[in-house]
Amino acid sequence: MNPRVILHYLSLIITGTGLAMLIPFFFSLTESGESTGAFLISIGITLGIGVPVFLLTPSRERNLLTREAITLVAGSWIAASVFGALPYFFSGALPSFIDAFFEAVSGFTTTGATVFTSIETQSQSILLWRSMTQWLGGMGIIMLFVALFPILGIGSAHLIQAEMPGSQYGEKLTARIRDTAKALWLIYIGMTIAQYILLRFAGLPPFDAITITFSTIPIGGFTATDLSIAAYNNLWVEIIVIFFMIMAGVNFGLYYFLFFKRQSSRLFKSSEFRLYIAILFFSGTIISFNLLDQMGFSIGEALRYGAFQVASIGTTTGFVTTDFDAWPAFSKGVLLILMVIGGCAGSTAGALKVIRIIALAKYIHRRLLMVFKPNTVIPIKVDGVALPESVISRIISFALLYAILAALGFMAMSAIGLEPITALSSVIAAIGNVGPGFGMVGALENYAFIPPLGKGVLIFLMVAGRLEIFTLLVLFMPSFWRWR
Amino acid sequence: MNPRVILHYLSLIITGTGLAMLIPFFFSLTESGESTGAFLISIGITLGIGVPVFLLTPSRERNLLTREAITLVAGSWIAASVFGALPYFFSGALPSFIDAFFEAVSGFTTTGATVFTSIETQSQSILLWRSMTQWLGGMGIIMLFVALFPILGIGSAHLIQAEMPGSQYGEKLTARIRDTAKALWLIYIGMTIAQYILLRFAGLPPFDAITITFSTIPIGGFTATDLSIAAYNNLWVEIIVIFFMIMAGVNFGLYYFLFFKRQSSRLFKSSEFRLYIAILFFSGTIISFNLLDQMGFSIGEALRYGAFQVASIGTTTGFVTTDFDAWPAFSKGVLLILMVIGGCAGSTAGALKVIRIIALAKYIHRRLLMVFKPNTVIPIKVDGVALPESVISRIISFALLYAILAALGFMAMSAIGLEPITALSSVIAAIGNVGPGFGMVGALENYAFIPPLGKGVLIFLMVAGRLEIFTLLVLFMPSFWRWR
Repeated sequence: MNPRVILHYLSLIITGTGLAMLIPFFFSLTESGESTGAFLISIGITLGIGVPVFLLTPSRERNLLTREAITLVAGSWIAASVFGALPYFFSGALPSFIDAFFEAVSGFTTTGATVFTSIETQSQSILLWRSMTQWLGGMGIIMLFVALFPILGIGSAHLIQAEMPGSQYGEKLTARIRDTAKALWLIYIGMTIAQYILLRFAGLPPFDAITITFSTIPIGGFTATDLSIAAYNNLWVEIIVIFFMIMAGVNFGLYYFLFFKRQSSRLFKSSEFRLYIAILFFSGTIISFNLLDQMGFSIGEALRYGAFQVASIGTTTGFVTTDFDAWPAFSKGVLLILMVIGGCAGSTAGALKVIRIIALAKYIHRRLLMVFKPNTVIPIKVDGVALPESVISRIISFALLYAILAALGFMAMSAIGLEPITALSSVIAAIGNVGPGFGMVGALENYAFIPPLGKGVLIFLMVAGRLEIFTLLVLFMPSFWRWR
Repeated sequence: MNPRVILHYLSLIITGTGLAMLIPFFFSLTESGESTGAFLISIGITLGIGVPVFLLTPSRERNLLTREAITLVAGSWIAASVFGALPYFFSGALPSFIDAFFEAVSGFTTTGATVFTSIETQSQSILLWRSMTQWLGGMGIIMLFVALFPILGIGSAHLIQAEMPGSQYGEKLTARIRDTAKALWLIYIGMTIAQYILLRFAGLPPFDAITITFSTIPIGGFTATDLSIAAYNNLWVEIIVIFFMIMAGVNFGLYYFLFFKRQSSRLFKSSEFRLYIAILFFSGTIISFNLLDQMGFSIGEALRYGAFQVASIGTTTGFVTTDFDAWPAFSKGVLLILMVIGGCAGSTAGALKVIRIIALAKYIHRRLLMVFKPNTVIPIKVDGVALPESVISRIISFALLYAILAALGFMAMSAIGLEPITALSSVIAAIGNVGPGFGMVGALENYAFIPPLGKGVLIFLMVAGRLEIFTLLVLFMPSFWRWR
């Protein structure tokens, strides 16, 4: 492991973060606030560190070793968040650095949990940067799924290796990765533009349309309003946001085949896509019925609020159109389970991912069969392809680690003194990159009141969840640093 | 599958249940209550069905097929509970049959969850029967672990196959099973006698000493008092109960080697035993500190209540010496995790079992190592013996099924309208065969208020947890009944 190689690539990320801040900086010039100075200082520090390190470290033309790549990935999210937190800090919007860092991590991991107690009182340039961190984080995730995770065998992308053109190993690997990444980014940018235009048609001002779009496509959840999407009370806006949340939670590899290879049948043949849609449809239906029955809603209200919240939580976005914390226990239970399931692999959604649920269900079914048919050999197939046992083992370990981290996080948050609902849902919402939870971190609440130690736990969980857990946890193994 | 063979063995269980009722029947003759009649009717019905079925079904001298054995096991617990519920029902103690059945299932599965809103107003013969169901259930579990589960590869006993003399397959299998079962039952009975004598020395009247003993050794949790063990406020009683709860949670196979083979070193070399003790010691310490810090207890009180509740919940017994529902969230969180971990394999404790935790931890550690050392081959060893991958796969499936059943149960209890803490803890307490949970099913509460549907869910979970999940779930697979 060569620290200079890692620093070289890391300085690229830092420089990129600094350059991205130029956008809110220029925007701040149109405002009367004092954010301009904060952005100027932040950009100065970020580029002042990023550029010299980039120039002083060798740009050797060699592939990264596995351990270097892992360190780089975890380092990228942390570095982007450290420097991305500076504008919050210097503008005085979040005078405590742990708060600023929390907000930046929540952005770059596309979680959407906020420590702002009041959002509409912030300057628009700060809120623009806040939504931008999510959009940039989403781009980073797509890059990870295309380029790195398939090679490492981490994450859920290995399940779609056969389908993802960038993941065949070989001589032209780098060129292919570049091509695929370019194609997926085009899809990402295309969806962004489409949503922005539709939201403008629905009547939103440019600033609101852009911040919402920047938080929808990466499945983030930040908005520039205190009441989230509820602030607009605009049915068209809600329908557009629902549509794009659900679309953003689909495996981007399927869009690649749809738009670049004209193979639309792939989409509907994908068992993950079909189960994903079925879960959302089923959850939306039972929650709407529950709301109709228990909350005295009209059919229209039950469907409107039910559908939006299921799409928002089921994709791990975290937008809110009503205080779902006041919903009956059953509906909240469904939302909690949706927080654990998450969207599709190869999207910017968080949590377990639907394809892992499929694989786990088939694995358990096979084990039950083997109780009375001990000698049965049944391959576990997804879309007709048998998964190698090593892939299944990764999926299982992922699910177990997810449960263990959630349990440990729950213990830690309880030890800090949070009541159980808040402790559990904050942890599930953090590791699944959802955003809002229940209780004191519920739909209309925020994370400001949580003590620094608790914020640290949630920051760890947000990064762990975003980087498919393995990538972060191996850094804590002594043998990771000792090996060779 | 031959239903007549299954019925033959099942009628033995039913007849045994009827004969066991003779003890509380004779006891009821010394009382002034009306339980005598109830026991008479119950015995009449039970033997009236058990004996003729036994005589009318063939007693063929052949080994049970796997599917027959599984059906028999699940059928045994259900049949014993159906007939074991009759005394509650006919005496009017529990006039609803679902309540009576719940109490009987809770007894035979050694759970200890009760639907009695007042215990001390019940006749002593009913309370004696109630504790007896736990003691009989515990005997059944020991038989299962020795005789059936190792052959089926179900349960945690397969982990100790090499150590359990009855589990080597071969010609003398039946004789060996008989010998081992006899030895383990001797240990079980010996512990029962020892605890009874010590409790008498500590000053308990015979009836209280016997009911507590009958609920301690099988890790049950029923008592003849409304306030559980707190009713006696006797430090010696608490120390004796703590000691026997912890001893009962140890793998009985280790006692076999200790008492019958004089190999005491096995006990202290067992990594499961050592981790089990370490978990209890560590949990007791941190809870005592937490109580000292938050509850204004003296050091003595914190240790006394902390140690007892950790031993009781950590072994899945469910005795209570204080209202732990009023404890700080952190202590309750530790207790909740103890409810999931459970005692050692090969004991009458419920839940996941410590050895599975060891195997899961090693499995995850190996998977993390393989992220950066993909070609490493590391066997998963427990006590120096490498576990076959098939055993690891069973452990993993068990843990996943445990989590899935808990999640589905939580959803079901939420749908019924229970608040989240009650819903979650009732489910964890049922599937882990613990007894009390938190909230409305907390330390000093009961399960009477739960609607019939919810009781049905908990009954299912108690049986599933007791029979190591697989045994019950395969009965719901169509291919189980179709096969061959």
